[in-house]
Amino acid sequence: MSEISRGLENVFIKATSLTYIDGEEGILRYRGYNIEDLVSNCDYEEIIYLMLYGELPTQSQLKKVKEKINESYELPPQVIKILEELPHEADAIAMMETGFSALASYYDYSWKKEENKERALEIIAKSNSIVANVYRIKEGLRPKVPEPSDSYAKSFLTAAFSREPSEKEVKAMNAALILYTDHEVPASTTAALVTSSTLSDMYSCIVAALAALKGPLHGGAAEAAFKQFMEIKDPSNVDKWFNENIIQGNKRLMGFGHRVYKTYDPRARIFKKYAEEIAKTDDARRYLEIAKKLEEKGIEHFGGKRIYPNTDFYSGIVFYSLGFPVYMFTSLFALSRVLGWLAHIIEYVEEQHRLIRPRALYVGPIKRDFIPLENRQ
Amino acid sequence: MSEISRGLENVFIKATSLTYIDGEEGILRYRGYNIEDLVSNCDYEEIIYLMLYGELPTQSQLKKVKEKINESYELPPQVIKILEELPHEADAIAMMETGFSALASYYDYSWKKEENKERALEIIAKSNSIVANVYRIKEGLRPKVPEPSDSYAKSFLTAAFSREPSEKEVKAMNAALILYTDHEVPASTTAALVTSSTLSDMYSCIVAALAALKGPLHGGAAEAAFKQFMEIKDPSNVDKWFNENIIQGNKRLMGFGHRVYKTYDPRARIFKKYAEEIAKTDDARRYLEIAKKLEEKGIEHFGGKRIYPNTDFYSGIVFYSLGFPVYMFTSLFALSRVLGWLAHIIEYVEEQHRLIRPRALYVGPIKRDFIPLENRQ
Ligand SMILES: CC(C)(COP(=O)(O)OP(=O)(O)OC[C@H]1O[C@@H](n2cnc3c(N)ncnc32)[C@H](O)[C@@H]1OP(=O)(O)O)[C@@H](O)C(=O)NCCC(=O)NCCS
Ligand SMILES: CC(C)(COP(=O)(O)OP(=O)(O)OC[C@H]1O[C@@H](n2cnc3c(N)ncnc32)[C@H](O)[C@@H]1OP(=O)(O)O)[C@@H](O)C(=O)NCCC(=O)NCCS
Repeated sequence: MSEISRGLENVFIKATSLTYIDGEEGILRYRGYNIEDLVSNCDYEEIIYLMLYGELPTQSQLKKVKEKINESYELPPQVIKILEELPHEADAIAMMETGFSALASYYDYSWKKEENKERALEIIAKSNSIVANVYRIKEGLRPKVPEPSDSYAKSFLTAAFSREPSEKEVKAMNAALILYTDHEVPASTTAALVTSSTLSDMYSCIVAALAALKGPLHGGAAEAAFKQFMEIKDPSNVDKWFNENIIQGNKRLMGFGHRVYKTYDPRARIFKKYAEEIAKTDDARRYLEIAKKLEEKGIEHFGGKRIYPNTDFYSGIVFYSLGFPVYMFTSLFALSRVLGWLAHIIEYVEEQHRLIRPRALYVGPIKRDFIPLENRQ
Repeated sequence: MSEISRGLENVFIKATSLTYIDGEEGILRYRGYNIEDLVSNCDYEEIIYLMLYGELPTQSQLKKVKEKINESYELPPQVIKILEELPHEADAIAMMETGFSALASYYDYSWKKEENKERALEIIAKSNSIVANVYRIKEGLRPKVPEPSDSYAKSFLTAAFSREPSEKEVKAMNAALILYTDHEVPASTTAALVTSSTLSDMYSCIVAALAALKGPLHGGAAEAAFKQFMEIKDPSNVDKWFNENIIQGNKRLMGFGHRVYKTYDPRARIFKKYAEEIAKTDDARRYLEIAKKLEEKGIEHFGGKRIYPNTDFYSGIVFYSLGFPVYMFTSLFALSRVLGWLAHIIEYVEEQHRLIRPRALYVGPIKRDFIPLENRQ
């Protein structure tokens, strides 16, 4: 009872039928389906349906989800104005927090069992608009609402870049969306759950999750991993850099290691495959070569300690090859994870709700006599 | 290991030297000092110093804190513009979330041991400005930055109402600020801690806490309690209302009951005393009479189950008597609690930091074979 659970390690905060992780074998499943099958065969919208409704959709169910999303991209114009008001150099996740908080001022998405999933679909659509416009506004481009299409990934890329993406690009974006959809209860999902436990509105739950995701120990790792590649500059520098920074400098290798996986993260393997396919420019190819050599070095050095590449090691090369600047990587992660956050809070509020209220162990002075201001020294 | 800790009840998420609660005896202490002594003798700024630095300040330390706060009320003008952009009927806490998220876009308050407490003082000052202007903007008044004075409570009331408050009003506001300062690790503080554990910036931690506070099971109780008094309308209706709603209607009596206190909440006793002193208008006196009769009924009915008035039962009458509309009650709670949130996250990040990452117990289907879209039915 009076033991502190540091980092809540091995504390079970809820039950879930959403995501299964086997950290020993490197297995990840959404609702029982292997991540590899889902990424190779599904549109992101099928994953949206799967996570919210529990089953892969039939063709007519999928059509309905796509319709609902296509008609919900619109944002109140003031929300766009608010994003434009922020400084261009603002952190992209801080801008997302602002956008979603503003949305909490427009829509009262409190909890009603008959409506929660419809509300979730609207939030997922509006996330597409928010992230596309965070990018556009930071780049000094005119805001643009995503247009309806047969693909969430395609609407997103088209809105962000004002041009039709290639089929390969849509596939890669779609894969990234699926790979980042959910990962059980990391810090961001925990923040969303705590918020939902007070029956706060759904937008505010997303705001809390974004606030937690923002930290470099969580959502920021893809950026950090990619910055290593940029610092290394050329594949021929990998050995030297690794010796100086990781071995002698005793720094952490970013994009390596995981609280749950003690083997190769299955998502890393898939991101690597997409990186191979989509990295086209000389720069992108060079970063990929650096990453592959760095992976080898890392596994050679850390494999014995069961520290392997995680999902963030190669994802940045995919995002970079799609044309996104490094500052957008965490927001692209967030765009996908909004679905996981929503699925978890709906599961919690509808099926297992209770106010989340832990305790703190008091270790300070027990009782002190008050001293009036004039007598203190 | 595989047991779920529902609501994290009795899970100790951290150690603390900030707040001690004895729920059996009804004792509350900040850093060892009884809440009664602090409320009767201190300015809120002394509590700010006490919570952040561990000791009651000397006169010169107090002077410095007041100076620092007085010079930090200013907000970037765009943040005010952003608040004005929101609809007047927006929830006051959603507006606060937006304001603080916007501030996270302006200031990079990441963690540096030498600077954290100075940053905290700035955030506390800016909270004063945000809350005063949420009120002003919702009322259609021109925004106004609080002006330096010898009292945080006085600067706040003067900015909100554009008039000099009476000494009694300043005292009551000061008392409310002290009473709501901290209460160990309720949901909002837990959300702030989870966010800080990823090393996200300090403003984002406050945003997450606000998102959690917003829920009716947490910060919303003072509003809910006061709305009961409004519904009852007259002291002569208390018995009838109680029978119909609480006994027969089986509703919860709002402002009663607590996860930790199993006796009279010491804060409720103090708020009641201030309500007595400050309720002046016929309306306020009538609500107070209703509250007192309802308290009697409630204790008579629930006392045997150890359910007593909590801090939110009388606080609304104090806020109402100060001139605030009901929609502001949760934001006034938040204005004070920002200090508690900051003190807890600083304690956590500086002394006990670890990424907060619980687990979820997987209870869904273990492995399912993938079915292509065209074969699903
Ligand atoms: C993700 C992470 C925080 C896992 O955390 P954890 O389970 O709490 O692991 P710990 O931080 O307790 O580390 C355990 C040991 O492995 C080492 N380690 C873990 N990840 C490491 C890395 N990426 N590089 C070097 N050493 C690492 C630690 O130094 C520690 O070694 P020690 O026991 O000799 O002191 C950690 O692997 C990490 O910081 N990785 C880099 C950041 C990253 O890629 N994050 C994205 C995760 S998806
Ligand atoms: C604050 C609160 C959530 C405490 O939660 P908790 O420790 O989780 O207590 P539980 O919700 O498990 O309730 C325990 C029992 O007391 C009863 N109870 C608790 N507070 C009650 C209230 N205010 N009115 C009527 N019954 C109440 C519950 O119905 C339950 O009864 P049962 O065992 O016969 O089913 C609860 O007291 C409450 O909802 N109060 C009203 C809202 C409020 O004032 N909140 C502000 C708190 S500062």
